[in-house]
Order: sequence, then structure tokens, then C-alpha cells
Amino acid sequence: MKIIDVEYAIIGAGTAGLGAYSKISRKTDSLVMIQDGPYGTTCARVGCMPSKLLITAADHAHDIETSEFFGIESTGTVNGRKVLERMRRERDHRFVARNLQYVEKIPAHHKIEGRARFIAPGHLIVGDGVEVKAKKIILACGSRPEISEVFNPVLSRVLTSDTIFEITDLPRSVAVIGLGVIALELGQALHRLGVKTTLYGRSGKIGGLTHPDMQQETLKTLSNELEIYPSGTVERTWEDEGAWIQYRQSHGETVTKVFDRVLVATGRVSNVDRLDLEAAGVSSDQHGNRSFDPDTLSYPGHPIFIAGDATDVLPVWHEAFDEGRIAADNAMHYPDTVDAKRRTPLMIYFTDPQMAIIGKTYQELQSQEIIVGELPFASPRHIVWNKVDGRIQVYLEARTGKILGAELLGYQAEHLAHILALAITHQMTAEQVLEMPIYHPSAEELLRDVLENAQRKR
Amino acid sequence: MKIIDVEYAIIGAGTAGLGAYSKISRKTDSLVMIQDGPYGTTCARVGCMPSKLLITAADHAHDIETSEFFGIESTGTVNGRKVLERMRRERDHRFVARNLQYVEKIPAHHKIEGRARFIAPGHLIVGDGVEVKAKKIILACGSRPEISEVFNPVLSRVLTSDTIFEITDLPRSVAVIGLGVIALELGQALHRLGVKTTLYGRSGKIGGLTHPDMQQETLKTLSNELEIYPSGTVERTWEDEGAWIQYRQSHGETVTKVFDRVLVATGRVSNVDRLDLEAAGVSSDQHGNRSFDPDTLSYPGHPIFIAGDATDVLPVWHEAFDEGRIAADNAMHYPDTVDAKRRTPLMIYFTDPQMAIIGKTYQELQSQEIIVGELPFASPRHIVWNKVDGRIQVYLEARTGKILGAELLGYQAEHLAHILALAITHQMTAEQVLEMPIYHPSAEELLRDVLENAQRKR
Repeated sequence: MKIIDVEYAIIGAGTAGLGAYSKISRKTDSLVMIQDGPYGTTCARVGCMPSKLLITAADHAHDIETSEFFGIESTGTVNGRKVLERMRRERDHRFVARNLQYVEKIPAHHKIEGRARFIAPGHLIVGDGVEVKAKKIILACGSRPEISEVFNPVLSRVLTSDTIFEITDLPRSVAVIGLGVIALELGQALHRLGVKTTLYGRSGKIGGLTHPDMQQETLKTLSNELEIYPSGTVERTWEDEGAWIQYRQSHGETVTKVFDRVLVATGRVSNVDRLDLEAAGVSSDQHGNRSFDPDTLSYPGHPIFIAGDATDVLPVWHEAFDEGRIAADNAMHYPDTVDAKRRTPLMIYFTDPQMAIIGKTYQELQSQEIIVGELPFASPRHIVWNKVDGRIQVYLEARTGKILGAELLGYQAEHLAHILALAITHQMTAEQVLEMPIYHPSAEELLRDVLENAQRKR
Repeated sequence: MKIIDVEYAIIGAGTAGLGAYSKISRKTDSLVMIQDGPYGTTCARVGCMPSKLLITAADHAHDIETSEFFGIESTGTVNGRKVLERMRRERDHRFVARNLQYVEKIPAHHKIEGRARFIAPGHLIVGDGVEVKAKKIILACGSRPEISEVFNPVLSRVLTSDTIFEITDLPRSVAVIGLGVIALELGQALHRLGVKTTLYGRSGKIGGLTHPDMQQETLKTLSNELEIYPSGTVERTWEDEGAWIQYRQSHGETVTKVFDRVLVATGRVSNVDRLDLEAAGVSSDQHGNRSFDPDTLSYPGHPIFIAGDATDVLPVWHEAFDEGRIAADNAMHYPDTVDAKRRTPLMIYFTDPQMAIIGKTYQELQSQEIIVGELPFASPRHIVWNKVDGRIQVYLEARTGKILGAELLGYQAEHLAHILALAITHQMTAEQVLEMPIYHPSAEELLRDVLENAQRKR
């Protein structure tokens, strides 16, 4: 058995692993990165990029259906095979390829392929053939979709975000299980591409906005277009020329429908459970979760660090990369710790209308004295676009007028979100942001108006 | 003859006039606003709003033509009458109506209708029936399109931005004279709506970007779609079952074509020349122009102030409104002056790709030591959209890294422009902006990348 003895081992060559690698490889040659399965990040293969490619196709299909309002009479046919081919072609040739080129440049002796697990502290076995001894180990082993056992009878029809981008034609109908970001983005895209789509929630919560009015607005707006059961339980599934789903709504009524496919998007779980972390001396608490320090991304008392999806917090892409670097920084300073400077939180859902959360959520601010500036998402430009659904809320610190956070549901919300992110990063007040020029007519006028709305309430 | 004696007279009830009114009316009842022609701003009637409505329709038509790339097979027919009806309906019921409602609320004794001209210092005659004596007078009388005499033979086929939005059906062909913002926005929109369009420039300059590479990129990109003659002179026009245009290109060759319509968009001139300003004691210089102080918007030595399009500088909407307020401020403090705090310059062209200038232009910075960060307009998101034309430049102060200005040509440039406008307003360095989170994949990643590109050159 080959034994490799290094200073650093990084388990996983995804976004977080590469973030860690970019930092450590500048300082030392004594490192390996261990990859299980083909290279290419979750983002490029099954996440951000293919989903945005599919959504863009769906937007085009939707535009055709809505163009008559503008005086353009049109008809369109979705060629499902072509939509999917284009999506995969762009994904593979542009985004995955770019990633593979980067990995290609990494020296061969820094790369090991196979699934890693601990056999002792600082001691890993990779596949069946290689042992790695490393003083410091970074867990960037990602996550996998979670599939409840209730779907076992229809498993051959079940898709997850890991498999949906490999289908060769669009199904006629799909049940989407979940109302989180993946469920909503893909569910709406499939619907707009002509797939008969039904979405099933669990707790009634939809999307990520936390203010009760924003939750309500999200459900109302998306229900105008999509068939959504927000609250209930999938009780039973069975196969009979389709996947039958029996769903009991919270208020008691049962709905039973049959679908070509079932997209299970109820969450992802960390792959850390496959690492035999106990063998490294890390004890699991009673729920089976491991406890690491979220500030330093390290397991106190162990030279083990964690980053990206492996943390089970499911950071978005830029956070996963930042985390890889933070974990690397702490590994390099071990046993000292380096306090990470985290960026302002920013989350965007690429639905239509989009959702965005910037800085602190309403839920996080509930106990503070805040002013809520609030408006419908309907600037003059939004009227021009005929895209006036949604709502914007900004949260100001009552005493200072400082912008603490915001929740947005609306067309082009992603751009207002970035302006707010810059303002919050630099602790600006509403008044300071209002010093900037705002072009007429632009979506950004809504930001001006909602900040003025908040100012007037102070 | 009725004589009205007031402290303040505002000539013009457009954006600048209303800006001035909003400020003065809070302090005194002794004012009149004099409007020539129907109420409603240039912006709402013939500017920002109808042009954006037309562009949105054109974008929809264009989307249909480009959707096959995404796997959506579609065909569309532009119903010209419906496009124009929808444009006018939205314009009149939403934007003009909103303006008229605002004017409606202004007390009747503050409003006079008719064309004003000076008969003596502080003394106006309005139409034939009313004299107004005012201690301080604000000129917010707007501008009108300029039409060269060479178009006299085809005048019945000439359109300007003041008349184009009134046509009931789209012409088959149009010659667009000019390569400024109105010419490019409307020329491209008409082309996308199926009108055979040719654009004629004069000096070779196209759009507003000032860096030679950006000029070149603009011409190259727009010429891929549009027929553009950038440099030459319209020598002769005549009518013969169409408007014939004989145009001599700078390099000598002559092009002669016939069109249904001619859109003259070579600029607007101030209406100040209609006011008999000499009668107010303001002397004209040898070129016939009046000289006012651009900081205080006042004519030194006279209680006369000027704002908006009337200045001949053609401010964009938010500047026109700001200027009305600045002029009002100076009128109220006369003979003292109030130094105006101007916002960071921000100009956006709603072409596809869009153009934007923020802060100082390259031309203005040429003599300073600057770093130019520069990239093609092709973030991962732009690749997803299949919209990768264009280029971005940011200008940093070499010594400090402070962002001084930027020029953009690209899809969704308007949003990056606003982030840069906030950063420049608060004198941020590239490094400070790079502390913000940037979502993946978003157009804003391009901003991150170009700032990093500039940083590496320091």
C-alpha cells in the first residue's frame, strides 16, 4: 500500500476545496487534494450554471407567451431535446471545461482520486490503494441530495438536482417535492418549458424571505402561475404507469396525482458522514452531527477544518469559496486561529419574480428597534416591463438610520440586492445611499423610493 | 390687461419647473408657474417613458428572433398599430396621467397658461392677455428638436422625438439622422420592430463613450445589427414617392437612398431664444448664447435663474429635477448664492448592448495618472444569456486606487452603473468595493473582475 505523507490534505476538489487549495498551494508543496468522482464543482455540474441555463431557456419561452401585451403576436414551441442539449453543451464546454482546465494545471502529485475515510487521527485511506497521512485535514467533501424513503416505490422516476440535468427530453409532468430555492427555480423553469408541474411543500414556508408579509406575497405571486400545495405530507407513493403521489394537506384533505417524474428537492446532506470522522477522534453528539466552530471552521482540539456544503449550512458559491480560504487560513495557523472576516450575507433566488435577502433577515432583527421601509415592486420601469409583482422591504436601525438588511421579491431584484450589499458592507445609512444618482427610469428608482419611505417613518 | 405681481415666476412646468416649484411653494404663496402648451413633462410625453415602452416591445420582438438558440422554436409578427397603441396607452394612462394629477393639485392661482416673453427686467407678458411682474424668474422652458434646413424638401416625412410617438403605424423604412442617444435608442427599436432602418452620423462619433477603444467597440457592435454610416454629411434631400437622402461619406463616396420617414435626432436646442431675454437686460454674447453660472444656475447680476433642458446642456431627468431645485434655492437666497451639491454624473443609453458613463469620463481623466481596468462584457451569466458583446472600463486614481469613473458597453450595464455610482459618490477605492459579496452567477461578477483587473495593474 502506497503511503503519502504531507502537511495538508484537502478532501474534495469542488469550490470550497479549490478555495483552500488556492491558498495553501502558494505556501507549500506538501499537500494533496483528494477527489471522489469526476472533477468539476457542484456549481458548474449540477448547481448554479445548469439551473441558470435552463431558467434562461424558460424565460425565453415565457417571453413568447407574454409578448402579445406589447403588440408582438407570436407562437413558440419548446423543443425539449434541444433545450436540454443546449443547456448541457454550454455547461460542459464553458463552465465545467473552465473548471477542468484549472484542475488540469494542478500538479499531478497534488491530486489523488478516490473516496477518502479516516482510519486514525491524521490518517486517511483513499479508495483501496492509497494511505494519506496529513498533519492538517480540510473537509470539503460537499453534499448530496436527500431522498426520503417514502419515494422508494417510485425511485426509478425520481430526479434530484444531481440527475435532472442529464435527462434527454422533458417529461410531460413532474411533481416537485420541496419549496426551497432548487424546487422553486427548477419547478418554475419546467412549468414554463411546458411540463405540467405541481409543487408540494411541507411546513407552508415558501422560499427564503422571513417577514410574514413577504412569505404571503411569495405564495400569492407564485401561485398565480404554479400549482402549489404549500403545507402537508407525502403519505404514500406507488408506481402504476407513472409515479402516484398521495399527499395529505395540513388542513386534512388528501390529493392524489400521477406524474412522469418526481423531482425531490427537499434538501442536501453533508457527505461528512461518509468519512468515519470518529476514527479521527472527533466525537459525534447525540444527533450524529459534528460540532465545529463556525467562525474558524475548525473542530476545536483537532487539526481538522471544514468548508463549503460539507458544513451542512449550504453556503452559496462565493461563500463556499471564501470558506475554503478561511479553513485553509486556520489550518495554516493551527493551533492558533484566524478570525474570518465574513462578507455581508447575500442570497438570491432566480425565480420570476426573483427573491433576495441581504444582510440581516427580518427574523434576525425582530428583537431590535428597526424601521421597515416597504413598497410594492412597481417602479415606472417595472410598469414599462409589465413586471409589477412583488414587494420590497428594507430594515433600518431606528436610532441611526443605518441599513441592516432587506428582503426583496420582484423582477430584477438581484441588482438592487447588490447595491444594498455594498451599502450594508460599508455600514451606510439610508441618507448616504440617497446621495447617489438614480437614473430614470430604472429599477433602482424603487430602491430610492423605499429608502425614502423608511426615512419618512423615522 | 391683467397684471400679476409675485415674488417668483417659473417659466415652464416640466421636470425642472416642477422641481423649482416643489421647493419654492413650500416657502411662499407668491409665485406663478407659466406653461406653454399642454402640461406633462418632456420625459413622460416624448422622452424617457415612451422610448422605453417602445424599446421594451422591440426587445420582445428581438427575443423571439433569438430564442432558437435556447431550443425554443418561435415565430412572431409585429403588429405595428398595436405596439404603438400600447405604447401610447401606457404612456398616457400611467406616466402623463401621473404628472397631470400632480399639476392638478397645484392651486389655480399658481398656474398661468401661454407663451411667456420678457418685455422689461422682471416683467413678462404671457400670450396676449396677462402681464407678470416677478422679482425672481426661473427659466425652465425646455428645449425643442433641431431640424436642419437640408430636410425642408421632405419636411412632411420628417419625424423628431417630439412627433414619432404619435404615428399610428410603423413606417416600412426610416432614415435616422444622428448617432446620439435618441437616434440609437429609437433607431435600434424601430429596426427590431421590422422597420428597415439606416442611421447616418456626422463626425464618426457614436454614442457617448469617450475612450477610443470604447467608441470603436460601440460602432463594431451596433454595426453587426444595424446599417450605420458613421461619418459624412446629408448633402441634399428631395421628395419622390418617398424621402430621398443623398449622403456624402467622409471618405468621399456618396450614398443615395429613399425612405418612408426621416427621424431627425441631431440634437435639441433650448427654448430660451424665444424669451426675448435682451428685454430683461441680459446681453447675449457674440454667438447669441447667454452666459449663466453653471454652479448656481443664475445669470450674474440678474435675478434670473435657469434649469433643465433650457440650459442647453440637456441634463438627464434626475439632473433636471435637481437643477430646478438648485435654481429655486439660488432664487430664494438671491443676491446670495448657494453652491449646489451635484450628484455623481450618471448617463445610460438604453440600447442593446447598453452604454453607461459614471463619474468622470476617460476624456476628462486623460491628463491624470489613472489605471484603466478593462474586460470584455462576458461574465458567466452573460454567457448564459448569450449576451456577450461589449466591454467595461473602470478608471482608478493611480496613487489611491479610488474609483474615478467608468465607461460600459454591455447587457445589463445599467445595474453595474448604479453600483459604481454609489461607490464613486462615497469616494470608494476598488478594494473597498471588493469587500462586498458578489453573487454567482450575476452580471455583477464582471464588476468584481474588472476591479481586480485594475488592482493587478497598480
